[in-house]
Amino acid sequence: MTQLHSLSVPVFKQMLGGLQTVLAKAEAHATARKIDPDALLQARLFPDMFPLLRQVQVASDFAKSVAARLANVEVPKLDDNEKTFAELQTRITWVLTFLDSLEPGQFDGADTREIVTQAGTPKEKRFSGQSYLLNYGLPHFFFHTTTAYDILRHNGVEVGKKDYIGIY
Amino acid sequence: MTQLHSLSVPVFKQMLGGLQTVLAKAEAHATARKIDPDALLQARLFPDMFPLLRQVQVASDFAKSVAARLANVEVPKLDDNEKTFAELQTRITWVLTFLDSLEPGQFDGADTREIVTQAGTPKEKRFSGQSYLLNYGLPHFFFHTTTAYDILRHNGVEVGKKDYIGIY
Repeated sequence: MTQLHSLSVPVFKQMLGGLQTVLAKAEAHATARKIDPDALLQARLFPDMFPLLRQVQVASDFAKSVAARLANVEVPKLDDNEKTFAELQTRITWVLTFLDSLEPGQFDGADTREIVTQAGTPKEKRFSGQSYLLNYGLPHFFFHTTTAYDILRHNGVEVGKKDYIGIY
Repeated sequence: MTQLHSLSVPVFKQMLGGLQTVLAKAEAHATARKIDPDALLQARLFPDMFPLLRQVQVASDFAKSVAARLANVEVPKLDDNEKTFAELQTRITWVLTFLDSLEPGQFDGADTREIVTQAGTPKEKRFSGQSYLLNYGLPHFFFHTTTAYDILRHNGVEVGKKDYIGIY
């Protein structure tokens, strides 16, 4: 049996830790150069893409939602009212603590359990737990962590891929 | 036992297929607007980041290298001499064919087998197969597929996340 805890929680923790490092360097960059933090937090790669702040919210959303569904617990709701780097750090720390609260045993059988997203809407999708993680959860999660990094690199913040990758 | 074939090959195939769709739309965009294809292929988000063409080469490199090491076969070498969208498509198709040539049974025991990258160099790293895939291979692979997409979005190519995610 595939143990989905070991395939999801450590990856989310690694990458969210990396995201915290990247965001800390971005905030320090803004402070050192007297840049309005919103110049980074509201930066986008194109007008109809999410700005940095929303990319970070969505990345942390995928981490907590995917892990919660695989552990078969209610998906925690967050208020999405962050406005500062400090509040984004607090949000990520909250998600990291939530991830740590999940026991590996709660993921038993998750690989074959059916998971339904956006139930009852035209966008409803049904997955096995394994497919939900691999074909849907990880691609979306990595999309937003990478795009947050790309926005900051595009704005000249000195971060590197080592920061993005995090510690494992 | 974790079956690393099912955790790697289908994900790489899905995302490389998505990358092919994204690149096909980018080429069509350039053709329709009489844009020099190099204006996209050589576009970067920042001067010291890789341009689109190299992002695509590296994404396909991670897919073939990670899969080969997990399957315990020699890592195929590619010449990195692509210059056009058509040549990038051919490269990705080559990698997709290579991935299809690997049998699930070749991945037996890969989760605990030691994998050494950049052996004998100061950057040498040692992983279990599972850690090599989850902590190293997937984060790097997704980084380059996402950044290729972000470069094109930043340049106004009309692609969406659905294209990036691919078919699964």
